[in-house]
Amino acid sequence: MDDIAVDIGGTQLRAALYPPEGIEPRVLKKIPTQGEEPAIERLFSLIESIWPEKNGIRCIALGAPGALNPVTGITYQIPNIPNWNGLHLKELVENKFNVEVRLGNDANLAALGEWKYGAGVGHHNLIYLTVSTGLGGGIIVDDRLLVGSQGLAAEVGHITVLPDGPMCGCGFRGHLEALSSGTGIANYVKRELAAGRPSLLTQDTEPVSARTIARAAALGDEVCIEAFNIGGTFLGRAIADLAHLFNPTIVILGGSVTNAGELLMKPVREALTQTVISPMYLQDFTLTTAKLGDRVGLVGALALART
Amino acid sequence: MDDIAVDIGGTQLRAALYPPEGIEPRVLKKIPTQGEEPAIERLFSLIESIWPEKNGIRCIALGAPGALNPVTGITYQIPNIPNWNGLHLKELVENKFNVEVRLGNDANLAALGEWKYGAGVGHHNLIYLTVSTGLGGGIIVDDRLLVGSQGLAAEVGHITVLPDGPMCGCGFRGHLEALSSGTGIANYVKRELAAGRPSLLTQDTEPVSARTIARAAALGDEVCIEAFNIGGTFLGRAIADLAHLFNPTIVILGGSVTNAGELLMKPVREALTQTVISPMYLQDFTLTTAKLGDRVGLVGALALART
Repeated sequence: MDDIAVDIGGTQLRAALYPPEGIEPRVLKKIPTQGEEPAIERLFSLIESIWPEKNGIRCIALGAPGALNPVTGITYQIPNIPNWNGLHLKELVENKFNVEVRLGNDANLAALGEWKYGAGVGHHNLIYLTVSTGLGGGIIVDDRLLVGSQGLAAEVGHITVLPDGPMCGCGFRGHLEALSSGTGIANYVKRELAAGRPSLLTQDTEPVSARTIARAAALGDEVCIEAFNIGGTFLGRAIADLAHLFNPTIVILGGSVTNAGELLMKPVREALTQTVISPMYLQDFTLTTAKLGDRVGLVGALALART
Repeated sequence: MDDIAVDIGGTQLRAALYPPEGIEPRVLKKIPTQGEEPAIERLFSLIESIWPEKNGIRCIALGAPGALNPVTGITYQIPNIPNWNGLHLKELVENKFNVEVRLGNDANLAALGEWKYGAGVGHHNLIYLTVSTGLGGGIIVDDRLLVGSQGLAAEVGHITVLPDGPMCGCGFRGHLEALSSGTGIANYVKRELAAGRPSLLTQDTEPVSARTIARAAALGDEVCIEAFNIGGTFLGRAIADLAHLFNPTIVILGGSVTNAGELLMKPVREALTQTVISPMYLQDFTLTTAKLGDRVGLVGALALART
């Protein structure tokens, strides 16, 4: 039987119908997350719109950003869907469609997707980090997704890497996300510009983002190169910490900031190599970039359906 | 059938024979780790000396400090046994006694012991930290010991909590062990004494250790109270990081430094509460001290034998 994978994004809801094998959907539809009807009704309509005429569905797997509990199936803080705080999402979808429903955090599912169908195939201990506006991740331990007691595990963006460091989106200081995410890298440049440092970018540059910073860095802009060096260095150190904790055979970096290529990856590799306490951690070890690209949201949910 | 548990310590080799149930040994023997014959011969003799007259042995489980690979059974750096670097320990013991042999890192096995027979009974996601001369740990994820691809996981003492912070025993700076272990706490006091801070302890006090510092702190000594506050604060923050990564229901602190009681535990609890990004991490969550005491080395190995 087919599976349905749903990617609940902050701007788009995407759903796809998958045959029992492979990762090419039979059909894929997307609608804006926000609209007149409540998000749950929009989600129901979207799933109905791709429901197969013949045969049934084996499993619906839902991936969503933010805080949720995959065990109970309750959502807490889902970006742009404020009234899903405390929603029994899994149960609602199960009751509506009368099939098995699974729920997971999007970064966790991206790890699952890369492990089953992407850059991590064949690995048993894997860490996936997504570096974009925020910084999230997912961890595979002995071929199983690490979710923890309430599904709140693998919050790699919120480990403290620099006490009293820059402010993180979560309201605490010095988290990895505050230093190495696209936002963290942009904030560094903004602070340096405000302090009067000369740069190709200006305080009026709209937007000062990882993308515009990478472009200026490619032109030799000192502040922008520095911003990626600092972000990459803290990311590399954090990967060393994660290596000490999980001893994985692969770390996969995904997310839009990895489009900066060597500008990010070089300081990451250098800091990682300099920071691991034993070269054994880097034996039979791969640091690489993600393979699934934009498909990772749906393919990650598909991987959950097939787990 | 009975099991044999062996605790390979830096100063003592201890071995005990256990009936199929319970954690009371039928017999327990110990000998110094160093002596005239090679350590492997001393280990063989020790095991032979407790071998039962009737019946056989189901499993011999060995716990050892330092770097080893529980999967391959090879030891690397074992304190005070320099010539065990690259030793196929598991295979040698298997060939000698012709029974199943298992090998584990002592801090990992302590986690397993506390989980199966100590403060962590009934928990599925558990973190155990031992705070003594060094700082080590073991992690249970979904009822399984986290060992990683080469058995090098759960090196919690060597995550960086303060970049450019004090020197760690491993040669890197700012590790949790450098700040929160007994050695880290003592080094803080030694630095303050060298800087001329007044204290009940002096540079001639022999030894400036977690124990003498705790005693002076109990008498109101400012530097010594401060030392525990700093060590405890970094430990509490690290526990928050570990909560974000593993979302456990219990964190158990063992090791001699926990004898300082509230002097250590108060700053740990405060930092943990202040640092977790969501109160959900502390719901249905326990921070407690270890139960097995000195028995943890043997009982941890026993837990491995019975896994």
